[in-house]
Amino acid sequence: MLRNIANSYRISQRLASNAAASGSNNAKDYLLVKESDGVREITLNHPKTLNSLSLEMMSALHEAMLKNVNNINLRCVVLAANGKVWSAGHNLKELQANPEIKKDVFQKLTDIILDIRKLPVPVIAKVNGFAAAAGCQLAASCDIVVCTMSSKFSTPGAGVGIFCSTPGVAISRVMPRPKSAYMLMTGLPISGVDAYVAGLATKVVPEDELDKEIDEITQSIRIKSRAVISFGKKFYYEQLNMPVEEAYLQAGAKMCDNLEMTDCREGITSFIEKRKPTWKHED
Amino acid sequence: MLRNIANSYRISQRLASNAAASGSNNAKDYLLVKESDGVREITLNHPKTLNSLSLEMMSALHEAMLKNVNNINLRCVVLAANGKVWSAGHNLKELQANPEIKKDVFQKLTDIILDIRKLPVPVIAKVNGFAAAAGCQLAASCDIVVCTMSSKFSTPGAGVGIFCSTPGVAISRVMPRPKSAYMLMTGLPISGVDAYVAGLATKVVPEDELDKEIDEITQSIRIKSRAVISFGKKFYYEQLNMPVEEAYLQAGAKMCDNLEMTDCREGITSFIEKRKPTWKHED
Amino acid sequence: MLRNIANSYRISQRLASNAAASGSNNAKDYLLVKESDGVREITLNHPKTLNSLSLEMMSALHEAMLKNVNNINLRCVVLAANGKVWSAGHNLKELQANPEIKKDVFQKLTDIILDIRKLPVPVIAKVNGFAAAAGCQLAASCDIVVCTMSSKFSTPGAGVGIFCSTPGVAISRVMPRPKSAYMLMTGLPISGVDAYVAGLATKVVPEDELDKEIDEITQSIRIKSRAVISFGKKFYYEQLNMPVEEAYLQAGAKMCDNLEMTDCREGITSFIEKRKPTWKHED
Repeated sequence: MLRNIANSYRISQRLASNAAASGSNNAKDYLLVKESDGVREITLNHPKTLNSLSLEMMSALHEAMLKNVNNINLRCVVLAANGKVWSAGHNLKELQANPEIKKDVFQKLTDIILDIRKLPVPVIAKVNGFAAAAGCQLAASCDIVVCTMSSKFSTPGAGVGIFCSTPGVAISRVMPRPKSAYMLMTGLPISGVDAYVAGLATKVVPEDELDKEIDEITQSIRIKSRAVISFGKKFYYEQLNMPVEEAYLQAGAKMCDNLEMTDCREGITSFIEKRKPTWKHED
Repeated sequence: MLRNIANSYRISQRLASNAAASGSNNAKDYLLVKESDGVREITLNHPKTLNSLSLEMMSALHEAMLKNVNNINLRCVVLAANGKVWSAGHNLKELQANPEIKKDVFQKLTDIILDIRKLPVPVIAKVNGFAAAAGCQLAASCDIVVCTMSSKFSTPGAGVGIFCSTPGVAISRVMPRPKSAYMLMTGLPISGVDAYVAGLATKVVPEDELDKEIDEITQSIRIKSRAVISFGKKFYYEQLNMPVEEAYLQAGAKMCDNLEMTDCREGITSFIEKRKPTWKHED
Repeated sequence: MLRNIANSYRISQRLASNAAASGSNNAKDYLLVKESDGVREITLNHPKTLNSLSLEMMSALHEAMLKNVNNINLRCVVLAANGKVWSAGHNLKELQANPEIKKDVFQKLTDIILDIRKLPVPVIAKVNGFAAAAGCQLAASCDIVVCTMSSKFSTPGAGVGIFCSTPGVAISRVMPRPKSAYMLMTGLPISGVDAYVAGLATKVVPEDELDKEIDEITQSIRIKSRAVISFGKKFYYEQLNMPVEEAYLQAGAKMCDNLEMTDCREGITSFIEKRKPTWKHED
């Protein structure tokens, strides 16, 4: 595996050099993006580099995530990947060749991850493959994470001398300590089922049910008011670090504010009138 | 399902109006309460409103929980429900009809939940059915949660325009983030087994073993000193939000204080003397 | 069970008295310690006292853990136990006979547990038996916890009048609240599989696969740079209590520092050069 990753890093580096030489930084070299019925599916599409999170890949991803994010027609984002490796993490060769960019590399993924939380729509990781190191961090940082039985997750950085400290921030917040410490200290992968039991994955499904599962999730989000989801998501993340008493104090006030929203009035009225709501999707 | 809930809300609203008109606020309209051998079982008993947490239901529940709570004969509280819906959460029609009470509605459940933590005896949720929205919040806020295989849990508020922000405080503190975010953003239910894996439920059992499981739990609590359980429960909740070093510092002091308690001296002495302890149950 | 524990406490107390009388405090009375290929295996070896954590046992354990800890040949510690009881927790009779030592008893285990976090190498609990009270606390406090299917974990102190407040600090940080509260308030044991699902155990394996599982873990650690593991472990515990934004800010800086380490340069270079790394293991 490591050998394969090494090979791919070499290829990646060559491609990255070429890209730098030609001045290209084109999303379509790295991603496939399609949007329909309010669902934006962003697919990491650089299997030859094992979808490694080079600066260019991350820039393309960040841009694709944030594009027209205030358009009310956008209701959720699905983050998928082509190839057997969902993402192998940062591009080590890029880091070695250009050590001066290291700070930018880690900051870029932090920006993406904190923006996933800030995005006004839910972000769903659709994992069917191997998510390693920063790739595992990225998957674990989506709001919802669905993976297949054959998926694997690992944080193997220590094996090449760089402990997965940034991925550790992500996985230690969704998994019990004895499980995230195991991943970080041994570098050994866990299965999709283990990830579901541990909490990293919301759901684990057979490969042939993955699309259906994602459809059910996106459909359930699409039929709701974007304004309400956005309002709720923002407070959800705010309250996570509060003591429970403070969280309830603020949550009670949020519920009252929520009741004043146009789409909430419509939602409750339509519910009582036994009809489908007509959302405005605006604050 | 939503249609059924809508129907029941209408019924609930009518009953609530009637109750308000007659000035009645009688626990027996909403609850069954029985107490024997130190176990107080409070059963939500308003299946026609899907045990919705109207202000009157919550007042009755709060009162039933707190009644004679300092009597040393009370050793634990079991919170159960009649009907297929354990509780459907707050009464939306009540909220719409009387918007001025909204603050009171959310505050009331917060009071109940924070009082569950403060109660000097353990509170056990016995769930055999559907716990939704504030009903899910209430179940998740008990000290111990036992559910059946066929039980379901959901936070579907966003579907009618009101994001389950207060239930989110409860479920995000007992489940990994990717699982609670899924429940809140999609509104989709999870099964009893999923709830057990996620951490919301302490145990999941077949329906015909639920009573036996609850009996084992209440029996194990009844044979202990109420004073010791109360002392331990209080500190347990205090230390949850502390950094581990501070928690151990205070826990060590608590262990020393515990050793000075009359029932602790009796417990250790009886243990060494190979006889059953005779508890005083008082501080 | 309690009867058996009572018996063993009596035996333990007699042995402890003898030890005190003779002035002996010899690790080999309590532990077996062997070290090979960088793995130090410390085995609690006082089955007659159910490996109870008397002051002498804890002193021996603490000493064995810390011995030559800065020697770069030490790569990880495995904490095992002989007998059907991994450890029954503190020695109640010791506490009763010498109440003046109570503060020292709880402080000693806190010191051990906080030192497990500070140890520059991973500590792996290898559990094949019953880990109760402070024994459960000790197991849950190792970086990685592997148990067998037939293992059990409990915090039964309240049954003899002393609530497991210090064990509660440990288990409430690796398990969801409704599960740790259940253990503390009922004293009932959970199985190895329950412990795996709850998060207390990293892995649960059949008894005849325990050695192989531990070997795989220690082998994966041994082939890495001790300096890198130590660096990563230190920050891992530091970031656990930080808000996510602060954790990422500091983690990004740590990644940059990590890249400057000698063993990291070697790791990445060897990776790119398709050869095995030659670690220095020093900061």
